[in-house]
Amino acid sequence: MAVYTPVEQDDLLSFLKPYDLGEVVAFKGIAEGVENSNFFLETTSGRYILTLYEKRVDRAELPFFIGLMEHSAGAGIPCPTPIHDRDGRALKELNGRPAAIVTFLRGMSPQRPRVVHCAELGRALAKFHTASADFPIQRPNNLSVDGWAKLLAATGDRADNIKSGLGEELREEFINLAACWPAGLPWGVIHADLFPDNVFFVGDRLSGLIDFYFACNDALAYDLVICMNAWCFERDNSFNVTKARALLASYESVRTLTEAERAALPVLARGACLRFLLTRLYDWLNHSPGALVTPKDPLEYWQKLRFHRGITGPGAYGLH
Amino acid sequence: MAVYTPVEQDDLLSFLKPYDLGEVVAFKGIAEGVENSNFFLETTSGRYILTLYEKRVDRAELPFFIGLMEHSAGAGIPCPTPIHDRDGRALKELNGRPAAIVTFLRGMSPQRPRVVHCAELGRALAKFHTASADFPIQRPNNLSVDGWAKLLAATGDRADNIKSGLGEELREEFINLAACWPAGLPWGVIHADLFPDNVFFVGDRLSGLIDFYFACNDALAYDLVICMNAWCFERDNSFNVTKARALLASYESVRTLTEAERAALPVLARGACLRFLLTRLYDWLNHSPGALVTPKDPLEYWQKLRFHRGITGPGAYGLH
Repeated sequence: MAVYTPVEQDDLLSFLKPYDLGEVVAFKGIAEGVENSNFFLETTSGRYILTLYEKRVDRAELPFFIGLMEHSAGAGIPCPTPIHDRDGRALKELNGRPAAIVTFLRGMSPQRPRVVHCAELGRALAKFHTASADFPIQRPNNLSVDGWAKLLAATGDRADNIKSGLGEELREEFINLAACWPAGLPWGVIHADLFPDNVFFVGDRLSGLIDFYFACNDALAYDLVICMNAWCFERDNSFNVTKARALLASYESVRTLTEAERAALPVLARGACLRFLLTRLYDWLNHSPGALVTPKDPLEYWQKLRFHRGITGPGAYGLH
Repeated sequence: MAVYTPVEQDDLLSFLKPYDLGEVVAFKGIAEGVENSNFFLETTSGRYILTLYEKRVDRAELPFFIGLMEHSAGAGIPCPTPIHDRDGRALKELNGRPAAIVTFLRGMSPQRPRVVHCAELGRALAKFHTASADFPIQRPNNLSVDGWAKLLAATGDRADNIKSGLGEELREEFINLAACWPAGLPWGVIHADLFPDNVFFVGDRLSGLIDFYFACNDALAYDLVICMNAWCFERDNSFNVTKARALLASYESVRTLTEAERAALPVLARGACLRFLLTRLYDWLNHSPGALVTPKDPLEYWQKLRFHRGITGPGAYGLH
């Protein structure tokens, strides 16, 4: 959420030379995105975001992310469109970092999503899933079951520093989920991190999906429960079934869930909780005090996990 | 150069209610300004900067700064114009911080100012001095001679940690300057911090002056030498007389310097060096390793100071 690699005027002007973007009229570092450096760039031809990819993003994976944004934007998804230089290249290098220019999206992230936002989100997510069905590049989900095992091994009993007994509880949950993790569900490209921070609205209308840097191939319904976890709980971690119903119903207005997907939602939702719980736990245990990013509370996802463990079936999510 | 106080959607929307700015279409934290939190705000009525004033700015002085921007903008100076709410107030409060909305200025700071930029700057500075002649609020310059004494006392022999003998050299320079510091020069509102960071250009044309938070009442020519120090030395701290000549000549195309001002330029320039040397030294000695702001090199101004001590008179600045 800061600028890690500064870009000065001369660097920028040289970088822009191979593009047909006109003259620069404004350029400002912005506090957006997780561990990348982002700049607001306005030229005589329009407004853009320049991103310099920092350490957390693997260079080899950038063609997947850039390609996915381009594919999705081309299919009408309101997401950043990568800009090509005159040689047709969208992925370049600036100040020793991989760098890309994408279109600027209007809108603002909702701080406390309301039912109307959840409905907008559901529709947009289903459209994204549909649009990316023919996207040709693959990227495995490093933060699915195998990834959880690695994170569990890396955090271990230090989880108990946060909450007594948490380490053991997470190991048990992991074993249960690994044993029954659904296979054979409709599969495709998922965003995998569609938190309110990554969705823009102008008024109540969804205007943009951003930050595709966790996108990967996985069960489409898994993306839906990531959203449900992030959008349909209140600040006190109580579940708001009206929001979940709006999310699921509007998703289904574009793409109908299969019976297998519906049945799998609770276990997928638990997996999605464990995934964010574990990465937050890892960041919590390993962040340096001087870091620019404040770690998020892992226990938020522990409470959400408990909710999903306590329900009797997907009907609890407002499915008819 | 970061966002210190986050502003979430609900806070922003409540804050904007008393304004007639229309609907929010974009909002992003930006990395700009020294130790304030700044946000890019776009609404259906235009583009703005929202500033939350952090600890380094004294609340009691904000009416001076806000008033000065308003006065200058009204006189045609390309600077941020404070926006008033329906009750006529420009200075408000948000998340416990004093806050103001000002107009957004296009342009970009020059990384390596060229002669044409110095000429543009000179004209704009003279116009600003002329325009602010009838600005009614006063603010003393806390970073003039008395302020240097305080900074010297606070840094003392720790200056020698940076360069052996520096502490003694600074005390001597201070005594010399205090003994001959000019009085009775044309006086008025000066910007006092018009470094390239605080000046925007679109192409080669000056499009904005920003960051008025060091502005104060002082000798107008002192503002000019602050600019000369910041704009007319090369990266190796060699003096570029062509740039100085352009700066001074274009300044004089709007406001002619008096003979006393011309004669005083070298001593004023030395004072301006000492001022930035001392504040940088103080920040260097007192910054915490985890701070978001990297301290600037104090010795850059020690080298510039040596240049001004070595000249025979203001002719060295290209004055005819």
